Amino acid sequence: MVIEDKLQELKEQINKIVPSGITISDVEFEGPELVIYTDDPKQFADQADLIKVLARDLRKRIVVRPNILEDPERAAQEIRTVVPENAGISDLFFDPETGEVLIEAEKPGVVIGKNGVTLREITKQIGWTPKVVRTPPIESSTVKQIRTFLRSVKDERKAFLRKIGHRIHRETTSKDQWLRVTTLGCCREVGRAAFLISTPESKVLVDCGEKPGNTANGTPYIYVPEIYPLDSLDAVVLTHAHLDHCALVPLLFKYGYEGPVYSTPPTRDLSAMLQLDYLDVVRKETDKIPYTSNEVKTYIKHSITLNYGSVTDIAPDIKLTFHNAGHILGSAIAHFHIGEGLYNIAFTGDFNYQKTRLFSPAVSSFPRLEALFMESTYGGSNDIQPQRRDAEERLYEAVSTTLKRGGKVIIPAFAVGRSQEVMLALEEGIRKKKIPPVKIYLDGMIREATAIHTTYPEYLNNDLRNQIFREGLNPFLADAFVQVDSPDLREQVISGEPCVIITTSGMLSGGPVMEYLKALGPDERNMLIFVGYQADGTLGRRIQKGWREIPLGWRETIVINLEIATTDGFSGHSDRKQLMNYVAHLQPRPEKIFTIHGDENKTIDLASSIYKRYRIETHSPMNLETYRMI
Amino acid sequence: MVIEDKLQELKEQINKIVPSGITISDVEFEGPELVIYTDDPKQFADQADLIKVLARDLRKRIVVRPNILEDPERAAQEIRTVVPENAGISDLFFDPETGEVLIEAEKPGVVIGKNGVTLREITKQIGWTPKVVRTPPIESSTVKQIRTFLRSVKDERKAFLRKIGHRIHRETTSKDQWLRVTTLGCCREVGRAAFLISTPESKVLVDCGEKPGNTANGTPYIYVPEIYPLDSLDAVVLTHAHLDHCALVPLLFKYGYEGPVYSTPPTRDLSAMLQLDYLDVVRKETDKIPYTSNEVKTYIKHSITLNYGSVTDIAPDIKLTFHNAGHILGSAIAHFHIGEGLYNIAFTGDFNYQKTRLFSPAVSSFPRLEALFMESTYGGSNDIQPQRRDAEERLYEAVSTTLKRGGKVIIPAFAVGRSQEVMLALEEGIRKKKIPPVKIYLDGMIREATAIHTTYPEYLNNDLRNQIFREGLNPFLADAFVQVDSPDLREQVISGEPCVIITTSGMLSGGPVMEYLKALGPDERNMLIFVGYQADGTLGRRIQKGWREIPLGWRETIVINLEIATTDGFSGHSDRKQLMNYVAHLQPRPEKIFTIHGDENKTIDLASSIYKRYRIETHSPMNLETYRMI
Ligand SMILES: [Zn+2]
Ligand SMILES: [Zn+2]
Ligand SMILES: [Zn+2]
Ligand SMILES: [Zn+2]
Ligand SMILES: [Zn+2]
Repeated sequence: MVIEDKLQELKEQINKIVPSGITISDVEFEGPELVIYTDDPKQFADQADLIKVLARDLRKRIVVRPNILEDPERAAQEIRTVVPENAGISDLFFDPETGEVLIEAEKPGVVIGKNGVTLREITKQIGWTPKVVRTPPIESSTVKQIRTFLRSVKDERKAFLRKIGHRIHRETTSKDQWLRVTTLGCCREVGRAAFLISTPESKVLVDCGEKPGNTANGTPYIYVPEIYPLDSLDAVVLTHAHLDHCALVPLLFKYGYEGPVYSTPPTRDLSAMLQLDYLDVVRKETDKIPYTSNEVKTYIKHSITLNYGSVTDIAPDIKLTFHNAGHILGSAIAHFHIGEGLYNIAFTGDFNYQKTRLFSPAVSSFPRLEALFMESTYGGSNDIQPQRRDAEERLYEAVSTTLKRGGKVIIPAFAVGRSQEVMLALEEGIRKKKIPPVKIYLDGMIREATAIHTTYPEYLNNDLRNQIFREGLNPFLADAFVQVDSPDLREQVISGEPCVIITTSGMLSGGPVMEYLKALGPDERNMLIFVGYQADGTLGRRIQKGWREIPLGWRETIVINLEIATTDGFSGHSDRKQLMNYVAHLQPRPEKIFTIHGDENKTIDLASSIYKRYRIETHSPMNLETYRMI
Repeated sequence: MVIEDKLQELKEQINKIVPSGITISDVEFEGPELVIYTDDPKQFADQADLIKVLARDLRKRIVVRPNILEDPERAAQEIRTVVPENAGISDLFFDPETGEVLIEAEKPGVVIGKNGVTLREITKQIGWTPKVVRTPPIESSTVKQIRTFLRSVKDERKAFLRKIGHRIHRETTSKDQWLRVTTLGCCREVGRAAFLISTPESKVLVDCGEKPGNTANGTPYIYVPEIYPLDSLDAVVLTHAHLDHCALVPLLFKYGYEGPVYSTPPTRDLSAMLQLDYLDVVRKETDKIPYTSNEVKTYIKHSITLNYGSVTDIAPDIKLTFHNAGHILGSAIAHFHIGEGLYNIAFTGDFNYQKTRLFSPAVSSFPRLEALFMESTYGGSNDIQPQRRDAEERLYEAVSTTLKRGGKVIIPAFAVGRSQEVMLALEEGIRKKKIPPVKIYLDGMIREATAIHTTYPEYLNNDLRNQIFREGLNPFLADAFVQVDSPDLREQVISGEPCVIITTSGMLSGGPVMEYLKALGPDERNMLIFVGYQADGTLGRRIQKGWREIPLGWRETIVINLEIATTDGFSGHSDRKQLMNYVAHLQPRPEKIFTIHGDENKTIDLASSIYKRYRIETHSPMNLETYRMI
């Protein structure tokens, strides 16, 4: 059926379902959603179940939008008039895409009013649907910039969503039935994740990352004919914001991609932040930068965010659902349902099957699952990591020892993930008196990354959310944490009292950590604590191996007299035991498992162990292969 | 290096090697060959080893061509003047591509003269290089037409060969190194053979066949992005002329392919003949014909023939060598050498590892071999065929029995392959008095196919060649054989004496065999002998199963009272034992074997048996997969 006929038919169906008195003026596909335009948004809002009924009956994601949206400025005035001043409204964000206004307030309860009276009053006054959230305790400039940017391109974006909506719901013609996955990177290696799913109708790219530390051969095989022209792709899907999964998404737009990039909202924001940082780093190393901040903007303009659990059409025959992966903020297992019950395939991305201070363990049950592409970073039979609790005890010990002897602790860490885990561990250490009260300085992008974490509390685990909202105890706001935001303050930290410094980069390949190492390296009272994996060829690995004099430029040398410690166990990845456990707990049991995102021997070891233990067909694919699923 | 510089450098190298006095006027890539143009073709011809030395030192296929070729008509006159009349020159074929004149004579010795004196005289008189062959005992109209056609397009063809020559020797840029094979058909099925070899530099398609008896889903997956656009292919390579391997080659030209099709010379001629016949058959069944005879001509115009054992550049990083496959006339195992010693991969096409009356067993040793794609038609563990000798004994018995009781024998057979084997068996049967002297009528394309066999005696095995040339006993010319070339004669055969009729089609899906069956079916003295596999759904299979009344159109019925016999063992394929034997004798032992061209259970059975017995990594691929070789 042609799209226009399809929409007409849907409109008729909707008219049969909604009570008379509610006028449906228009029905339109916008991105993956079916948008119902109405003159009577309030009546719609009154019937809480109506949208659910429509979604179920039409098997579509439904959005209801008032036909005419009031001018945001006027609407803002009205909101501020209705809501009492002591609510502490900190921001109003009008999203023309959803017809919602996000009301950020220090006291959300006051905005909602007794039994929701204030909120209903707002709805009555303005066309916009109000949504109330607590003002993030730390403001993220990234989130603010992205929201502002998206508002500035709202017309373009509307046209884009309509185009995508029509494309998703296009007519299909093929009589063939098959499903293939082509490996474009990240097989028998860590880095440059990129997997192509294809059917006779559609093509979807899962991740598009870079290979860390490898500028020569760092891109996935995105130039092979399987994926060309790039605009033949229906969708790009991001599992999470780490650069080995998302760094080269902007490059796709440079090479002609014009479609959507699906991710969770935190992944979108963290990706943009890390991509811009990536450009800075690359710019320092070479003058061949792969793309500019313009392409990052283009990516954001084409991003479509989905929350965990929302089943979404992304192609005529493909539905995508994100599930918590427990790895970093917003990290997702991407589950694809192909055809009408034809096949189900999931990509774990990076995942952690252990509960951490920030996240719940990765989801292991799915409505259906035939094939799984599974990361194998710690897939080797000896890759057993210490328990998180033991790791923390060792960290406390190391910190205490250093402070006792009047030294300072340097903890190099990635901005996203491990930094926050270490922050929370140290905060609790101080609170529970396992380490002395001490200032913890955050230098580099860590603060901004933390801010993004506090913007999305729903992506943190229950315990942490309860601690923040019920107990009013936000550990990220603890007095101990001090942001280093000037060279002066950095000087003070260096020359000041014993303290802990968490700073980037995580593998000592540049960043403020170099300043600290230069200044604090010669003093043997200090300690450098590695909490993350140090890749071959990085300065971090060299220091671990015993390097004690590091040439810096052509005149300077860093002298390493400080103590070196390594505290395993803060990893965001499942270790070997957890990987095997994960397979044991998978619901349902898949027919095939592909082990990827690991060194060659680890992916092979894990694949053969899974086969031997569980008798599931396994493959440890190479890059550039194509596997038929059906 | 740019092509022009490369050619200039080659010219300088050549000038250093050839004796002074021989002028090299130009050097040019034409197709896979390096053509040296000279003003002194005679001096070149005098130095027999010079071309070999050049080929070895430059690692190229060398052709020497006189700068100016005499007008063919004048040259023809001169040849006829020099050669004595009793040589019986039957044809002169001037090939401007090679600068050769093919002299077909009944007595080649007379053309050559004592110690080659006449031949040297010819060389002296005309610029063309004379090549003498015996006049084929049966003239093939296909061969004649193809030669005439190629002569008529010689200018286009020269431009084409130059274009291809430049393309083969183009500069390469990729730093990547990989080799992949994508399965586009013929996996876990018989039919629609098509395999794509790709490297970062090049793409080659091996075979492009149809699926017999399956018009709905009969094409290989030539529309997937891996192979698009078709003109990005460097080459198409044909293993042999059966339709499940070559039927859709003309279609490639319709869809934009403009490159070369490599095959042996007999494969080119048989392919064209069978493609034209295929069009006739399809036209009778449906009005959706895939291509017309124009595209068959286009294919011929783009064909480049190679003899067994000739190592040929077909892409910047791929060398092709054909080896005897023992299956039908000109059938080849296609061996690809990738890069400079990087990898070697071969496709058996269909092959027979047993010596037959016509052909030597398939070649099993190669300079190098890492991966083999191997047919599995008889790959099931029960697919044991009788010895050829036993099969013939049974055939003799059946024929004798029938003749004795005054009946006629109908043997349905494919035009190419089995017909000739059965002809030779029956001829010997008569000669050695194992069956009574009897007329053997050939109806359908069998005669023309046989004519093509006699045009290429060098593609037959030694025994048969010796019998023909040394003993002067050409079995194909035996008096017993009578071509049925008119409806009148067919009527006479039907109403005449007891006899044997070999006729197409092989599975009773149309063709003259239907006439014979209609007329001879009701008489129980007659016999129908199947000598080949009858596919599911064909009339042949139905009769084997016991059908005794066959509706024909809406009024007629064929009544089957004649005796039905099946004589296995004339197959052109290796049976299970021979397949396993072949693997055992492979020199060198490959690292990987892929079993293809067989029913699902057979390819899987053979793959697992090879692995168990020989511990070679095996795969039974599905269509639409891509395997990384390196
Ligand atoms: Zn990650
Ligand atoms: Zn990763
Ligand atoms: Zn064949
Ligand atoms: Zn075949
Ligand atoms: Zn496999």
